[in-house]
Order: sequence, then structure tokens, then C-alpha cells
Amino acid sequence: MQFDHAGVATDDAAALADLFDDLFDAPVVHEEEFDGMTVVFLELDGGYFELLEPHDEGAIATYLDRNGPGLHHVALATDDIEAALDTARDLGVDLVDEEPRSGAWGHDVAFLHPKSTGGVLVEFVQH
Amino acid sequence: MQFDHAGVATDDAAALADLFDDLFDAPVVHEEEFDGMTVVFLELDGGYFELLEPHDEGAIATYLDRNGPGLHHVALATDDIEAALDTARDLGVDLVDEEPRSGAWGHDVAFLHPKSTGGVLVEFVQH
Repeated sequence: MQFDHAGVATDDAAALADLFDDLFDAPVVHEEEFDGMTVVFLELDGGYFELLEPHDEGAIATYLDRNGPGLHHVALATDDIEAALDTARDLGVDLVDEEPRSGAWGHDVAFLHPKSTGGVLVEFVQH
Repeated sequence: MQFDHAGVATDDAAALADLFDDLFDAPVVHEEEFDGMTVVFLELDGGYFELLEPHDEGAIATYLDRNGPGLHHVALATDDIEAALDTARDLGVDLVDEEPRSGAWGHDVAFLHPKSTGGVLVEFVQH
């Protein structure tokens, strides 16, 4: 599979985007309001940062309350997200999303449960 | 900059490497004992997972005690790590490593302080 992005929970996506652009030469390539969050994608050579700033209650807001800002998940791109989920099921991995759902930037996404993957929250994404 | 790897703190690198290989088609491409840890690199299309299993006291052991296993840092590759650190200094970013030091796999590495980078522990790496 291909590295797609590192997801970052933040309380100020605009400021962090400015910093990451200056620091990593990672320009903003997409921004949208999605599911009660400002979502900003910054492009690296070979992947993205996804900055997630929640405005409403939800998983990211809860994460920020509990952990503060920081790395939230890692996303891996696949050409066949259904097959990737089948493989995960066959390996006994617990799924957050049994079926792909619509994520930011119009992509299909599905999350695996971190208790099954060494504490790492993994997102499968199909562009 | 280029995505290089996602660093994962774990108490069982061998088991997690087996799972990630099966789940993500990410084979082990390098393994070594480094700085009191078993360090395992798994290759993705366009980057790596770095699994870190500590055997001695140290930053990763402390992290595991406090947070449990999971995502620890994200590493970005650069052709000029000194210049990358100069840019960080100019932007007022606090550095964990003022100068590059020898990291795993024979690479030069330097970490930025997460309090300056939105809670994200970032490693610069030069192969």
C-alpha cells in the first residue's frame, strides 16, 4: 500500500498550515468544511498532511479534549478499499467502518480500530 | 520535503511487523538493535513504518508508559538537514536536536519539539 497522509488534530488549522508550509515546503492543496471540521491538505513529496480543526462535537473534538493537538492517524491509499477491508477482517482486525464511507476531498475512506493495530489509528483511503 | 516514515512505539515489534506486512503488504526491509531498542522498518509504496520496541529506559519507554503503544512521530526526508534545521530556527521552532545526530539505519536525524509544531513530533532525516 501507499502512504497517503498523516492526520493531525489541531485547534488552529490556518496557523498550522502556514507553519508547515514554511517549515516543510508543503503548500495547501485542498481545503474544505467537512463533517463539522475545517480540513486542510498540505502536499509533501509523496503524500500529505491532513489538518483537522473541529468546530462541533465529534471524534476529533473528543481527541483534542483528551490528548491535546497532535498526530491523530495515518492513512494508506489503496486501489481497492473493499479488498483491503476484507483482508483486515480475515486477519481478525476490528473495523471502525465495516463499509467504506465518503470522506474529505471526495475520497472513500474506512478506519481500522487502533486496539487491533498496535494503538495506531489507520485509515484506508481510495481516491 | 518528502514523507519518509511514521514512527510507532510498540512493546512487540515482531508481532506488529507480521501484522502490518499481512495487512498493508509492507515487508520488513531493515531491522537493527539501536539505542536500546529493536527498530524495524517496513516498506510502503513511498515511505516506511518504523517500529520502535524499547528494551531499556529512554524516550520511547517513557512514551509507552505514559501513552501506551501507537503513533509516535512523523519523519520527513531532506537532502540538506542542516538547512532544514536553519529554516526551523529562523521560524522560531524549538529543536530537540540542535545538530543532526546518527539515527537508525545509518541516517542523520534531528527532531523538532512538538510544542512548536502543533503537538506533532517531527523528525528530519537525511539518508
